[in-house]
Amino acid sequence: MIRLTRRYGFSASHRLHSQQLDETANRQIYGKCNNPFGHGHNYVVEVSVKGRVDPETGLAVELSALDNLVKRIVIEPFDHRNLNEEVSEFGSLVPTTENLAVVIDQRLRAAWPAGFPRLEKIRIAETERNIFEVNG
Amino acid sequence: MIRLTRRYGFSASHRLHSQQLDETANRQIYGKCNNPFGHGHNYVVEVSVKGRVDPETGLAVELSALDNLVKRIVIEPFDHRNLNEEVSEFGSLVPTTENLAVVIDQRLRAAWPAGFPRLEKIRIAETERNIFEVNG
Amino acid sequence: MIRLTRRYGFSASHRLHSQQLDETANRQIYGKCNNPFGHGHNYVVEVSVKGRVDPETGLAVELSALDNLVKRIVIEPFDHRNLNEEVSEFGSLVPTTENLAVVIDQRLRAAWPAGFPRLEKIRIAETERNIFEVNG
Amino acid sequence: MIRLTRRYGFSASHRLHSQQLDETANRQIYGKCNNPFGHGHNYVVEVSVKGRVDPETGLAVELSALDNLVKRIVIEPFDHRNLNEEVSEFGSLVPTTENLAVVIDQRLRAAWPAGFPRLEKIRIAETERNIFEVNG
Amino acid sequence: MIRLTRRYGFSASHRLHSQQLDETANRQIYGKCNNPFGHGHNYVVEVSVKGRVDPETGLAVELSALDNLVKRIVIEPFDHRNLNEEVSEFGSLVPTTENLAVVIDQRLRAAWPAGFPRLEKIRIAETERNIFEVNG
Amino acid sequence: MIRLTRRYGFSASHRLHSQQLDETANRQIYGKCNNPFGHGHNYVVEVSVKGRVDPETGLAVELSALDNLVKRIVIEPFDHRNLNEEVSEFGSLVPTTENLAVVIDQRLRAAWPAGFPRLEKIRIAETERNIFEVNG
Repeated sequence: MIRLTRRYGFSASHRLHSQQLDETANRQIYGKCNNPFGHGHNYVVEVSVKGRVDPETGLAVELSALDNLVKRIVIEPFDHRNLNEEVSEFGSLVPTTENLAVVIDQRLRAAWPAGFPRLEKIRIAETERNIFEVNG
Repeated sequence: MIRLTRRYGFSASHRLHSQQLDETANRQIYGKCNNPFGHGHNYVVEVSVKGRVDPETGLAVELSALDNLVKRIVIEPFDHRNLNEEVSEFGSLVPTTENLAVVIDQRLRAAWPAGFPRLEKIRIAETERNIFEVNG
Repeated sequence: MIRLTRRYGFSASHRLHSQQLDETANRQIYGKCNNPFGHGHNYVVEVSVKGRVDPETGLAVELSALDNLVKRIVIEPFDHRNLNEEVSEFGSLVPTTENLAVVIDQRLRAAWPAGFPRLEKIRIAETERNIFEVNG
Repeated sequence: MIRLTRRYGFSASHRLHSQQLDETANRQIYGKCNNPFGHGHNYVVEVSVKGRVDPETGLAVELSALDNLVKRIVIEPFDHRNLNEEVSEFGSLVPTTENLAVVIDQRLRAAWPAGFPRLEKIRIAETERNIFEVNG
Repeated sequence: MIRLTRRYGFSASHRLHSQQLDETANRQIYGKCNNPFGHGHNYVVEVSVKGRVDPETGLAVELSALDNLVKRIVIEPFDHRNLNEEVSEFGSLVPTTENLAVVIDQRLRAAWPAGFPRLEKIRIAETERNIFEVNG
Repeated sequence: MIRLTRRYGFSASHRLHSQQLDETANRQIYGKCNNPFGHGHNYVVEVSVKGRVDPETGLAVELSALDNLVKRIVIEPFDHRNLNEEVSEFGSLVPTTENLAVVIDQRLRAAWPAGFPRLEKIRIAETERNIFEVNG
């Protein structure tokens, strides 16, 4: 069994603001991330899968198929986007990086092909000092 | 003479759209950066100064004074901001990273204290693959 | 459940020398790290916690509270310090990075607030080629 | 218990081509990696061990012994080599990074000294976007 | 005037061997890089141009045009290639990174479009510890 | 003409304290760097030379000769050392990174062999956010 990790990136903007909290609580909890005009990041996403090495090909996953899936499900709909306005889940969820990791995990699991090795982990870094991981 | 470089960072959102161009030209020139909802980046800014090493202190610049200046003039007004909406120069200028470098250079030169070593270079990276420099 | 990792740094000096070993053994085991005048490193510390995402805020931990804790318990007492002379545990323990990881883990666990998500892992890099992890 | 990771590197060339597949399948599966003249990479290898911290020395492993082992078993026979032509296992195995991770793991386990802490993980990065891990 | 740098990468193999030197001199000068089976690297190439910022678009260069040029002239013919066998200049030149920088510089200058900003510098890193620059 | 840069590293401790200043001035100017017990860093040193590419060998400098020189003149006497106590120039000079860059530049120039390409630049990073350069 081997674990393979692929790294991808996307650039997006967001605003942290919870509709369940009043203005004072929003400002206190999210600080400058609550700025109504928003701000943005270069997000780095790593997708890890775990599977057997095929003895004939020496491969654990068909990389181009994995890349195509991640690009279609995650990169295209998130890159150069405003997460609050253009990613449907964030109509109700606050686009914290915690929720971003959960949404990416859910989207990938829903689209995961039957023959693929197991999706093991999603890791997303908002900056190099701020990293979030979901283990399915 | 020694050259000293300090690295800073800020996270901001922007939209590339020129009021001097029509919709078609904007979409063609800026591509996905023209998305009306905007997107964002973790910008890395490096400020380089050139000066003599003080024989008494062994220092070329008082670092805390340089840091305070850059924080007041650049980081505070740009970090966790929407550049189009919240940075005055980008009311008329398109917030490309070229113009961002020029604006940072102009703001720092306008506020540069008399006793400081010479401001030599501004370097700003939008991503690690996209880097812009202005030599005063 | 999500895992959140925050990265911090501190610069310190140390000397590797065991009071339980004679001079020859110290020199043989620690080599140039046994130099009586000491040497130093830029240490990178990562603190990982594991918790639920609050459905109201979308956060797994209050970041400013975590940062304040790590700064008070680890960064302030270790940064720009001589570990042998200024960190009490290293009066008797050799300040290897193994012991540094254990001490940081112990200090954080002793001060960990009741309401915080679980402290899962301490990771400390002495250089980018030399990395140590403690899983509580 | 502590986990210690050491990072090493080597530069090698390879060609991905399976003798069990015909030319068309080889080209389709491996793409440009099937180029008959080969190509190459700067591989980064991380070896992780898990062990107790010796109370006398504060060390979990004798680093120079670990380094000597990895250099003799992995770096010397792989660095500045053509993997297909000069590493015996790749006479029959395709030198994908999956198989490279498995071969490094097998070689290290076969030579692992009795007194060493447990070999826990091999991690090899072909590029910074393509990472493979074996947990023995 | 602004300087813009774009970063690209390619993975290739090579062998350092001069037809003007005998076997002994080749082994002495190139060491393990003279291995007849070759080896390889992940090369990082940076292309720097210097130009005026267009007041209408805020851009110093049309990025997609620059990217297309570099991909056609450098990345496609070098990536996943054996430099000695597949890049014509290295039929007679030794594919040291010095010569690689010179060849990339010459190829780009020969194909440089009239309307482009000035090509100022080529930087190529064989590893992160080994960097070469040509200023036209 | 080509510019070649080699990257090296060393780990050292130091204390910033000027004998020409009183205690109050030392504390004010150097802050926590004035701590009498000292602290330390992983310094990264880059040495850049500029020369012609030899048409026979394709090399601008004999790398092993350059490496041996830098190791003998800089790395051996500075690595795992206390700069104040063990590097003679810092008996009278304050070991700021400015002075460290000047001392490395002077030591290398004094030992520079006649046949070597021109020593063009010394770059030293105390941390990745604090960088100093001397152009001979």
